[in-house]
Amino acid sequence: MTALTSRFGDLKIDALLISALPNVRYLTGFTGSNALLLVTPGRNTLFTDPRYTIQASQETSGCVAKTARGSLTAAAAQLIGRLRLRRIGFERGRLGFEAWQRLKDALPMGASLKPIGPVVEELRMVKTPEEVARIRASVMANSLAFEAVLQGIRPGVQETEIAAELEYQMRRHGAEKASFDTLVASGARSALVHAQPTTERVIANQLLLIDMGATRNGYVSDMTRTVFLGSPARKVRKMYDSVLMAQLAGIAAVREGVTADSVDRAARRVLRADGLDKAFVHSTGHGLGLEIHEPPRLGKKDQTRLQVGMTITIEPGVYIEGFGGIRIEDTVVVTASGCEVLTPTTKELIAL
Amino acid sequence: MTALTSRFGDLKIDALLISALPNVRYLTGFTGSNALLLVTPGRNTLFTDPRYTIQASQETSGCVAKTARGSLTAAAAQLIGRLRLRRIGFERGRLGFEAWQRLKDALPMGASLKPIGPVVEELRMVKTPEEVARIRASVMANSLAFEAVLQGIRPGVQETEIAAELEYQMRRHGAEKASFDTLVASGARSALVHAQPTTERVIANQLLLIDMGATRNGYVSDMTRTVFLGSPARKVRKMYDSVLMAQLAGIAAVREGVTADSVDRAARRVLRADGLDKAFVHSTGHGLGLEIHEPPRLGKKDQTRLQVGMTITIEPGVYIEGFGGIRIEDTVVVTASGCEVLTPTTKELIAL
Repeated sequence: MTALTSRFGDLKIDALLISALPNVRYLTGFTGSNALLLVTPGRNTLFTDPRYTIQASQETSGCVAKTARGSLTAAAAQLIGRLRLRRIGFERGRLGFEAWQRLKDALPMGASLKPIGPVVEELRMVKTPEEVARIRASVMANSLAFEAVLQGIRPGVQETEIAAELEYQMRRHGAEKASFDTLVASGARSALVHAQPTTERVIANQLLLIDMGATRNGYVSDMTRTVFLGSPARKVRKMYDSVLMAQLAGIAAVREGVTADSVDRAARRVLRADGLDKAFVHSTGHGLGLEIHEPPRLGKKDQTRLQVGMTITIEPGVYIEGFGGIRIEDTVVVTASGCEVLTPTTKELIAL
Repeated sequence: MTALTSRFGDLKIDALLISALPNVRYLTGFTGSNALLLVTPGRNTLFTDPRYTIQASQETSGCVAKTARGSLTAAAAQLIGRLRLRRIGFERGRLGFEAWQRLKDALPMGASLKPIGPVVEELRMVKTPEEVARIRASVMANSLAFEAVLQGIRPGVQETEIAAELEYQMRRHGAEKASFDTLVASGARSALVHAQPTTERVIANQLLLIDMGATRNGYVSDMTRTVFLGSPARKVRKMYDSVLMAQLAGIAAVREGVTADSVDRAARRVLRADGLDKAFVHSTGHGLGLEIHEPPRLGKKDQTRLQVGMTITIEPGVYIEGFGGIRIEDTVVVTASGCEVLTPTTKELIAL
């Protein structure tokens, strides 16, 4: 955790209390659902509850794992007192108001809390080769699942059945689970950007949008494909081509040193030329790794410079109420000269 | 939302800002992943982002749905100013520190924030007959999935494969998804109270613990069964019987008017008599509904009085490092004279 503690001087803190579980996992290896990690230049202490005593001793490295009898906050505050730590940073975007209040009340005299930005998330943005390998494996499980299910999709199948099959196949191909609730939306419902699948049956001559990701060894992937059940009309083909051109423009804009917002602009420009930019209601992509949404955000305002080893999605889409939505999304890894598209699934408009 | 606004006088607030998504869903029907709801005695306003404009107009009732162009917080603050609202309650256990800070900064002059406890969660504790019906349907999907998979479990199958089958079968039986990551832990791993399934293969003459729940129509169920692959030794049978007796004692203690902690005591007493209370490292149960963990908590300190229509789990367990864990869990609904056990799955020790 040297990369982290080396920043303590600038941040004007003596210790950092990590409450976000993916950050705890990143720093210690612990995968349980209840933990608090106190990072100091000299030692790192993981607090968890009795449900996880055995697991913590097996999973963690680089820290001392302690089981708190009462609240984790109280246990951490006690150690803060014992070590006479004074300026305690906490993750301002990851701690709840109530937890912050309890922590404040529990702190010993002389210690104070300082809100700190996403410092661990910033470390996590650039993946190690081992992390990229895990994401690559996750992408593979995801794409294999998509291919296993795709050809079986027929008019009359329920959206929820397709989602169930996709998630089942992900696991058959090595995933622990889906990295988010698989989205399957047919017809006009595909215009709902984040609609959960329903028991509606997929009908002929309609768009079908599938957004899915797998978690494998803790790391995620994210992919969207939009297919057509039948022979797509000219209007559909045209819209699809616009989105695909926008997606390819986004991918072409990715390389080390460019800003995240410039990638978003590149994709948006293509849709604007086709009069579809107003129907593109979200950003072009996001980082992903231990979590499905990580920085950077490839949106209008994020000026993060892309670095080699960042894993991000490129996913423009257009959504027309009453007609439907089209989105195409790949997971890519930034390289010095551009990026490698990890997702192997075809982006041609598939007519089922 | 009369039941909610009628409390504003006592709480000394003019409006309540709801940030917890299950609470937003409960009050408005909106199921999207980004929303803020401003409740006032006169009107309720739901703020969401452009991804959900169509969905919000379709799903919500009893509120005006607005799409915020920028942050939801800024949009809410603007309306607070326009309506000249002064004392704004927020959900202290549900709002992040950073969101609270942003909200505070965005508020107009004269308006101030007041932390409010789990008032919506308290309303949600007692389910309507329609909600109980949904939970019952979820319990059915879950138990049918368990039965469909159970007989196929053989030594050599991976934990993750069993989890995948269970979740697939839930959906085949009408669930939208699993209500949490299905736990499948064999042998000594079953002593890890919340272990995620691994690619380890289930081996003969070992315990196998399965903790699973289904979400159906938004409502969840929760069930744990511990089975044995082979013919269980006397020690295993004895431990199993202790846990089962504790679980039945917990169920027998449930009825309208008793406190949550008295149910926990009833279960714990049985395990203490068998010298196993130190191995019971969690509470006896929890409420469930739109979320898998809702109040009350059937633990040592919760003195909530049970009411007719509360849905709760009863799930004592014992965990011995190096040996394994046994937990038995049902979903039950509180009645005037006791409770109805919704889970139909047998609790005899199943030897596979």
